[in-house]
Amino acid sequence: MKRVLLCLAFDGTNYHGWQFQPNAVTVQSILNESLEKLLGVPTNITGCSRTDAGVHAKQFFCHIDCADNIPREAFLKGLNSILPNDIAVIDYREVDKNFHARYSAKGKRYVYGMYYGDKEPFDERYYYRIDSIPDIRSMNEFAATLIGEHDFQGFSSSGRSVENTIRNVNECVVTHAGNKVYFSISANGFLYNMVRILAGTALAVGLGKLPSRIANSVFNDKNRSLAGDTLPPHGLFLEEVFY
Amino acid sequence: MKRVLLCLAFDGTNYHGWQFQPNAVTVQSILNESLEKLLGVPTNITGCSRTDAGVHAKQFFCHIDCADNIPREAFLKGLNSILPNDIAVIDYREVDKNFHARYSAKGKRYVYGMYYGDKEPFDERYYYRIDSIPDIRSMNEFAATLIGEHDFQGFSSSGRSVENTIRNVNECVVTHAGNKVYFSISANGFLYNMVRILAGTALAVGLGKLPSRIANSVFNDKNRSLAGDTLPPHGLFLEEVFY
Repeated sequence: MKRVLLCLAFDGTNYHGWQFQPNAVTVQSILNESLEKLLGVPTNITGCSRTDAGVHAKQFFCHIDCADNIPREAFLKGLNSILPNDIAVIDYREVDKNFHARYSAKGKRYVYGMYYGDKEPFDERYYYRIDSIPDIRSMNEFAATLIGEHDFQGFSSSGRSVENTIRNVNECVVTHAGNKVYFSISANGFLYNMVRILAGTALAVGLGKLPSRIANSVFNDKNRSLAGDTLPPHGLFLEEVFY
Repeated sequence: MKRVLLCLAFDGTNYHGWQFQPNAVTVQSILNESLEKLLGVPTNITGCSRTDAGVHAKQFFCHIDCADNIPREAFLKGLNSILPNDIAVIDYREVDKNFHARYSAKGKRYVYGMYYGDKEPFDERYYYRIDSIPDIRSMNEFAATLIGEHDFQGFSSSGRSVENTIRNVNECVVTHAGNKVYFSISANGFLYNMVRILAGTALAVGLGKLPSRIANSVFNDKNRSLAGDTLPPHGLFLEEVFY
């Protein structure tokens, strides 16, 4: 048996997230069926994180333990031909037995995309539409206050219990190109709905509905209701995973 | 009653084309329901052309006759909020009573997009994937032979009867950007499946499977089997309509 790290990319629109769920089609369930078709035996799959229903990934890693002796190129080509159009396997790498897709990850980067102006059907799928251009400078003032180690409990939804709600944000920046606004954040880990709430708070700041120093109050009070809305999943991309 | 020309854009993935069909969801049927919700009365809609199931449009025009006195901006905003995410109304213009979305159109431009290299789930929706980069120069040699007035019967599928199979192509060019190849064609009209067959023939030329002078044989013999494959609909965009 050897341990193989697979890198996937997927359009999450039609999936109830990554993780197996009873009575729901998830990326993991589709990968599981596809791998069994390719390898002829059931294979355990361990993902780098959960992702919510409707969230996309440009890089999503998972590891499998398998006996296969299919050459790398044939494995990639074979698996891609079995997987549906909205899921691709983009890399295959043999790794050490101690390597773990989830626990070996040092951090991740997510990007939340928005667009403003007239409704555009080809943007609707991957961007959250906003009526007017927000103030990028105040959004970046807010983003800067997130950097460092903070208790993000107030920037998360209840529903998934974690003991430790402290996370370390390495980078957070808002960029603007054409009619698009991108909220990009790297951290050592993320709480449930954290990026979608942070992006919603950044947007509220950019629209003048919240002050750019709002994060300090949310960190101190751990009060979800002080932060902005949870933006819908379709604008969110898992962009990079750092090992 | 006034005549209004609407410009739509739509992602055709989930629709059985533009035109009404029994027991199928089409763009026209969705627009019809949405307009009735907005205006409170049934409204006749005349489109600029049929489009096939799964084909997209960045510009698609239709005209309606209506009594509405909703201001332009309110009409656009109201209709867009009723329409699903994959259909947008992008323009509203009062036109003369003699104006006709279909018969007043002088021509259209279609673009067929392909991409090469590794499977990419975000390209899979709007581009046809090819294994390797085709020869763009020979594709353009083929494209140049299409310009002018020709009998395109051999470059069309049977199934829709038209008397006259002669069309005038104004522009046809193949461009290459990043890992994308675009086959772009403007003409005064198009036969059933014509762009998808021409794009498939251009691709066969680019891959060395057909000679770049193949069009002359197809024009002379009117023989569909001499041309290339009909490429799938998801790479095709109605890009512009000329009035």
